[in-house]
Amino acid sequence: MYPECLKKIIDSFKDLPGIGEKTAERLAFSLINFNKEKLTNFSTAIVDVRDKIRPCSICGNITDNDICPICADESRNGKIVFVVEKAKDISLFEKINVYNSKYHVLGGLISPLEGIGPDDININKLLERIDKENIEELILALKPSIEGETTMQYIKKVLENRNVKVTRIATGIPMGTDIEYIDSMTLEFALEGRKDI
Amino acid sequence: MYPECLKKIIDSFKDLPGIGEKTAERLAFSLINFNKEKLTNFSTAIVDVRDKIRPCSICGNITDNDICPICADESRNGKIVFVVEKAKDISLFEKINVYNSKYHVLGGLISPLEGIGPDDININKLLERIDKENIEELILALKPSIEGETTMQYIKKVLENRNVKVTRIATGIPMGTDIEYIDSMTLEFALEGRKDI
Repeated sequence: MYPECLKKIIDSFKDLPGIGEKTAERLAFSLINFNKEKLTNFSTAIVDVRDKIRPCSICGNITDNDICPICADESRNGKIVFVVEKAKDISLFEKINVYNSKYHVLGGLISPLEGIGPDDININKLLERIDKENIEELILALKPSIEGETTMQYIKKVLENRNVKVTRIATGIPMGTDIEYIDSMTLEFALEGRKDI
Repeated sequence: MYPECLKKIIDSFKDLPGIGEKTAERLAFSLINFNKEKLTNFSTAIVDVRDKIRPCSICGNITDNDICPICADESRNGKIVFVVEKAKDISLFEKINVYNSKYHVLGGLISPLEGIGPDDININKLLERIDKENIEELILALKPSIEGETTMQYIKKVLENRNVKVTRIATGIPMGTDIEYIDSMTLEFALEGRKDI
């Protein structure tokens, strides 16, 4: 009953995470009220995502260039490199903006259960960077899950003979969360990582 | 820090209702994983919304044609016409699909407070249709609010001398809702509209 293009918009919205039929319809109808310029910008940007977005040839961050702005930024402290799972994770650390460091995007985590091995993620490039760049510390900012732990252990192992410090971000109780909602594994990590006050 | 096109996608998503910065970022990143065909379909559909979508010249429903499929459908019972506020509302009644009727979209409700008068909404066209088509009953399916009530009273008044039955959908307690959560005005309407069982 909807015009063809509206049906396609609804289908496109439904392909996005967390958006069901009703929300997709609501969003599609609101799009009808966008002015022509906004609709043009939206569609052009989608075409650009299709044609221009690719991984940075150094760190794997998404970029519309050969090298991403972070890798291209000479003022950054290249001695510290955050190792993250997804390109999106970079923005989280950029918002804190404390280390002015560089990044390395693995594009996944090692998962024997899902058949994802070390060669399936962006680890070899990381080793190359360590040999080539002047990296002093690798901060593993991966999620504390079976896959995250496996990946961290693997990276630690392959770097044993290289002169680089490898650290991981702390596992513990998030700010403002009641301890009673925390699983015992997290509690164990939090205890292990306790500090003098 | 994001590539230009990704920024624009995030901005476009943020213009949609109920979507904030974080969700817009999440949706934009998920779009990067769409395949080329899906991205093409999405952007083309947005261009089509921009270039093809317009109101049906008879009822005001959205269409990519001069006349919408419902108005063009000869098998429909044109004796009953639902009067709705927005084109989207049509789909709600189409899903029930009981009356096989036609529709008329007002495109708004009379609101003296917001300076919206009868001439600002699609009422004159409704009067034309009543004179021209063989309409027997007008079902006012507008929301029971001050604007909705005003609009319904106005339509009833201008149709006084015309030979058409004007009804309104019932105001009452929605299915499955506890009475204690219902405002007293709705309760009053529900009482007034009570039926023998």
